[in-house]
Amino acid sequence: MKKTSSRTQGSRYYPKRYDFDPAARNAILDEGLVCHVSFTIDNQPFIIPTGYCRVDETLYLHGSVGSHFFMEMAKGIPVCVAVTHLDGLVLARSVFNHSMNYRSVVAFGKTRLVESDEERWLAAERFTEHVIPGRWADARQPSKSDMKKTLFIAVQMEESSVKFRAHGVGDDAEDMGLEVWAGVLPLKQVPQAPETDETGVKGIPVPDYVMNFKRG
Amino acid sequence: MKKTSSRTQGSRYYPKRYDFDPAARNAILDEGLVCHVSFTIDNQPFIIPTGYCRVDETLYLHGSVGSHFFMEMAKGIPVCVAVTHLDGLVLARSVFNHSMNYRSVVAFGKTRLVESDEERWLAAERFTEHVIPGRWADARQPSKSDMKKTLFIAVQMEESSVKFRAHGVGDDAEDMGLEVWAGVLPLKQVPQAPETDETGVKGIPVPDYVMNFKRG
Repeated sequence: MKKTSSRTQGSRYYPKRYDFDPAARNAILDEGLVCHVSFTIDNQPFIIPTGYCRVDETLYLHGSVGSHFFMEMAKGIPVCVAVTHLDGLVLARSVFNHSMNYRSVVAFGKTRLVESDEERWLAAERFTEHVIPGRWADARQPSKSDMKKTLFIAVQMEESSVKFRAHGVGDDAEDMGLEVWAGVLPLKQVPQAPETDETGVKGIPVPDYVMNFKRG
Repeated sequence: MKKTSSRTQGSRYYPKRYDFDPAARNAILDEGLVCHVSFTIDNQPFIIPTGYCRVDETLYLHGSVGSHFFMEMAKGIPVCVAVTHLDGLVLARSVFNHSMNYRSVVAFGKTRLVESDEERWLAAERFTEHVIPGRWADARQPSKSDMKKTLFIAVQMEESSVKFRAHGVGDDAEDMGLEVWAGVLPLKQVPQAPETDETGVKGIPVPDYVMNFKRG
């Protein structure tokens, strides 16, 4: 992971808001469920939100063989991938010092169509286990026909940066006497009660890995 | 809002997953707190996660006058802006039919530096009220010096699309007899208990608009 390119340096370098430790980056990536992938066609930027998983320095994406965007990525194009967790609203005494607590990764790389059966299978398994650990062994694993309908794209992270804010209110000294409530309102992605699909075999209990699902 | 360009049509047109109703788009945008903005420099795509607000057909972003990315956007460049809500994990009997419930907007437009004092003030107010309605009237509003340090960027949405999935498990008929639990695990962004900043004036109660904060 390079550290110093203008792609990832940040123009206003707040040391406490950047982290180039791969472990910090991986923790953010491994907690996320959706990434945003951006790429360029004829100088027009595009974004797609999509699922992903990380294996070492590679992010895997997958999509339908009929997807225009995935066919574009199959050509091998530069992309930028972002994963962002919003952790809270920072409500300062002054509007100007309002902020958000967040953790984000922005990674740069080139797409590669995954062609070998072994790597495609690895990507399918890791993807499933990334989203909800325990599911791969429990659900019906992909058939040859399922795999034929799916494109897997690998993005090796050539460069990436981690940015975060994880502290309290930062008001200016002259605002500290204001009679305005200030603080942080934390936000958290919380699983709700599972909704069982009642159309198949009856009486199958909700698995522990669903009941106990949590991220972060 | 144009409907038919290749930018927003979707290559595999699932009618039930697209919605070109401006009200559906606005509901998703108005619920979101963070967007991802993508743009291109020398054919390299970039993404930044950032706050935003919507006023009619315009999205407003703001950043520091020292920010490289905001200075780039001040030039007037094509951008793609995405807002995504993840609503749940769809756990089918087969791995292949796993999915996510989500709502997303992808909007295309060109950036414009906001120059008039009136529009800059409007953007500041709407931004604050977008994040947490009630805050603008309560907090110390921006001074001239605060405003000088801030760039406001407008993106008029020339074109946009809404994509969503909001239904249950879609397994193939031949998988319906499998003894695998299937269903949806809903996910929700939930505010946690507010954390009061104790360094200023004591005894200010947490405002109702903080206690009762909710989105969607």
